[in-house]
Amino acid sequence: MLPFSERLAQAVRTKGNPVVVGLDPRADSLPPGFIDGNGPAEIARGFSRFCREVLDVVGSLVPAVKPQAAFFEQCGPAGMAALQEVIDDAASRNLIVILDGKRNDIGSTAAAYADAYLGRRPASVWGCDGLTVNPYLGDDSLEPFVEAASARGAGIFVLVKTSNPGSGRFQDLVADGRPLYQHVAEMVESLAQRTAGGSGYGAVGAVVGATYPRELAQLRRTMPHAWLLLPGYGAQGATAADCAQALDDAGLGALVNSSRAILYAYRQGDYRERFGAARWQQATEAATRQMIAELRAARGESS
Amino acid sequence: MLPFSERLAQAVRTKGNPVVVGLDPRADSLPPGFIDGNGPAEIARGFSRFCREVLDVVGSLVPAVKPQAAFFEQCGPAGMAALQEVIDDAASRNLIVILDGKRNDIGSTAAAYADAYLGRRPASVWGCDGLTVNPYLGDDSLEPFVEAASARGAGIFVLVKTSNPGSGRFQDLVADGRPLYQHVAEMVESLAQRTAGGSGYGAVGAVVGATYPRELAQLRRTMPHAWLLLPGYGAQGATAADCAQALDDAGLGALVNSSRAILYAYRQGDYRERFGAARWQQATEAATRQMIAELRAARGESS
Repeated sequence: MLPFSERLAQAVRTKGNPVVVGLDPRADSLPPGFIDGNGPAEIARGFSRFCREVLDVVGSLVPAVKPQAAFFEQCGPAGMAALQEVIDDAASRNLIVILDGKRNDIGSTAAAYADAYLGRRPASVWGCDGLTVNPYLGDDSLEPFVEAASARGAGIFVLVKTSNPGSGRFQDLVADGRPLYQHVAEMVESLAQRTAGGSGYGAVGAVVGATYPRELAQLRRTMPHAWLLLPGYGAQGATAADCAQALDDAGLGALVNSSRAILYAYRQGDYRERFGAARWQQATEAATRQMIAELRAARGESS
Repeated sequence: MLPFSERLAQAVRTKGNPVVVGLDPRADSLPPGFIDGNGPAEIARGFSRFCREVLDVVGSLVPAVKPQAAFFEQCGPAGMAALQEVIDDAASRNLIVILDGKRNDIGSTAAAYADAYLGRRPASVWGCDGLTVNPYLGDDSLEPFVEAASARGAGIFVLVKTSNPGSGRFQDLVADGRPLYQHVAEMVESLAQRTAGGSGYGAVGAVVGATYPRELAQLRRTMPHAWLLLPGYGAQGATAADCAQALDDAGLGALVNSSRAILYAYRQGDYRERFGAARWQQATEAATRQMIAELRAARGESS
């Protein structure tokens, strides 16, 4: 199997855009008819069906999807079975699947997470191409992930600067003349460089909130070998221009995530008027195409 | 339901010790006969049965257990079903169940994790009394956990200073004259104080590696209202004296975890000679009793 960075580059080139659709199923936001019952098993079944219908819409448009583990975990073991179905379905469509689990631990426990999630089935039991990972435990906690990712054509995205309002509480603390997120970014860059392939990018990337465009610009320079995964577009307020600055001249090196603004477009503004719940799929498709167009326009490309 | 801190205090008083048994099922360490097959479903079944047989041994001796999510996740959806069985079994024995998941995310996603795990069933779908949480994302990411914990008689343990050799890479960086872990500890203390009950401890605790006894002493002073969860005893090299310093005069305020040294005692040194795999339960019981006795001795109590 090709290295993760090369597969990602190929997927972005094939689809002609760097959009990641975040699969965040929320019981109170789904269109009517998906959930028949209040139990976790009924909700999990609805989540699985909804996400797979979203894949019917976006699967041919975007290179990657990012299931959010928390919402599936919220349905207990039945939710985890639903997560597996969604991952399998996305992988069967040749989408890059990045699980947003923000996992990490120490030593052999970190190795267990890496083994669990990284690599297409049957290399791993869950079969993900990528996983988000938390750096607080230190560099030794990341090594098992780097090892598994390299061996299985998978990748990780390390939290560097997150998109939430309170991310600065610890991430912006200044040590040795630079913020903590900059220290983490330096470690990510060294791991990305170590694993870099022909595209110039490595198996270790970074999560950087597009809601902090100035920090993003600086972090792009610090991590030239790292794929950046950018949350914050759309619902959280980041613009296409904020995100486009992270892409290289070939349109590679960054992925731009949108979750709610795509999944639940049918509930929002203009799309609600035009489509409503009955035609939620068309709202989702229109929102995806609009995001792709906005990113192209921000890079001065014609859509 | 009583607040978490009070239930924990009651459990420690009842059992007369602060020992937490870490439930870390590893396929290559289990006694023979638990796993019949190589598939994740067979391994998961073995994990569930082994952990429940461990509970038969330690359930009457210790106040709490800490299942490690990673090892169950390593068996895919079947592993998550096994995790649920183990949590339910431990809860039915009136053990305090702390899931070691090191979860966190932002905003409504953090809220989903909190809702998923915190509180006995049916308040939450997984039914845990406590959950380990990673602080990197900032103080706002912790709020949903504090809220759910307070509402449901549950608690969280925030990673402050972890037990691994590389924990210093980021946690020891000095900002504003003190290390990052100290900044995190100050936040934990303020949340612990805000939620403190009659025992003087709150619903927000901290994970502090007993492998760093000097830092532990300092952190105990910084967080007088926080229950400390101490990994590192036994297999990782921390001593009973290292841990005992974190307990208050009543023997409360800290939990001491041991995983491998208890679960797999039958493979180790003296216990291997005396019991071996055929009598692994007796090895596990002897190792648990020895740990309890060592902690009592370190506090100058007679065992």
